Amino acid sequence: MADEVADEEGRPLQEGEIPQIPEVKYEYLDHTADVQLHSWGDDLKESFEQVAMAMFNYMTTDITRVDMTRVHRVEAEGEDMLSLLYHFLDEFLFLFCAEPFLICRVVKILEFDQENFRIKAEGYGEEFDISKHPQGTEVKAITYSNMQVHEEEKKHDVFVIIDI
Amino acid sequence: MADEVADEEGRPLQEGEIPQIPEVKYEYLDHTADVQLHSWGDDLKESFEQVAMAMFNYMTTDITRVDMTRVHRVEAEGEDMLSLLYHFLDEFLFLFCAEPFLICRVVKILEFDQENFRIKAEGYGEEFDISKHPQGTEVKAITYSNMQVHEEEKKHDVFVIIDI
Repeated sequence: MADEVADEEGRPLQEGEIPQIPEVKYEYLDHTADVQLHSWGDDLKESFEQVAMAMFNYMTTDITRVDMTRVHRVEAEGEDMLSLLYHFLDEFLFLFCAEPFLICRVVKILEFDQENFRIKAEGYGEEFDISKHPQGTEVKAITYSNMQVHEEEKKHDVFVIIDI
Repeated sequence: MADEVADEEGRPLQEGEIPQIPEVKYEYLDHTADVQLHSWGDDLKESFEQVAMAMFNYMTTDITRVDMTRVHRVEAEGEDMLSLLYHFLDEFLFLFCAEPFLICRVVKILEFDQENFRIKAEGYGEEFDISKHPQGTEVKAITYSNMQVHEEEKKHDVFVIIDI
């Protein structure tokens, strides 16, 4: 039966028909990906805190395993709200990517100066430990792509696309 | 010590300082990703077979668990080599995404007509079974983005970006 042509519906293989596995002659290149974070809050300060927590939540598949044993201070400034948001997140990303390799469960903004575009914030968490924290997706960079900060009377929404 | 300001270096948290976990006010939107497949072979026919196998290898993290119990026929045609390649891969993607939900271990091209841009091929594999085949990454679509078919005397390379 080995010569019988497979019809469009497919058919079971007979013994002796199973082909050899060919040598692998392929590779995967240039993986790129991004995801858009959207956060909201009762005010813009809360939306900023939330988007930072959204970022950390992406780095592990179980953020509830992150204990808050340490607190680290972050300061960020910008020339407008968008660059402030960028630098605010970038500072937290840096805390994760280098010493102290901090993954935060809670981010709190202590000072939110919308006139001079300055933020003082604290991140509560612990050193990332692959044996304790199930690895999520690596966050490679914050981007300005389609970044949005919406501030209306009852609406405080933030949109940030991160490279992963 | 709860009022002590965290310095730039960070510090351990004292008891009673651990903040409450805030309500979640964020979501993830618009995840996009792609990966570039690159394959090669002794001739273009082999490179086409290889790039199809590269696609299937992306759908599971352990292609060696795919038994070849079935064979399915695929026919594709195009107006040039690029559209032929697109349709060839798209036919195999369709085999996976709908009945018979076939994941292939081996792809063989029976007829490779480079003048009329027609391919007849067979895929050897079995129905995808999440309990048997460790799930890889969902392949959402073949794209024409930066698609390349190189055919020189000793070089037969194919590049295809797929959305994942």
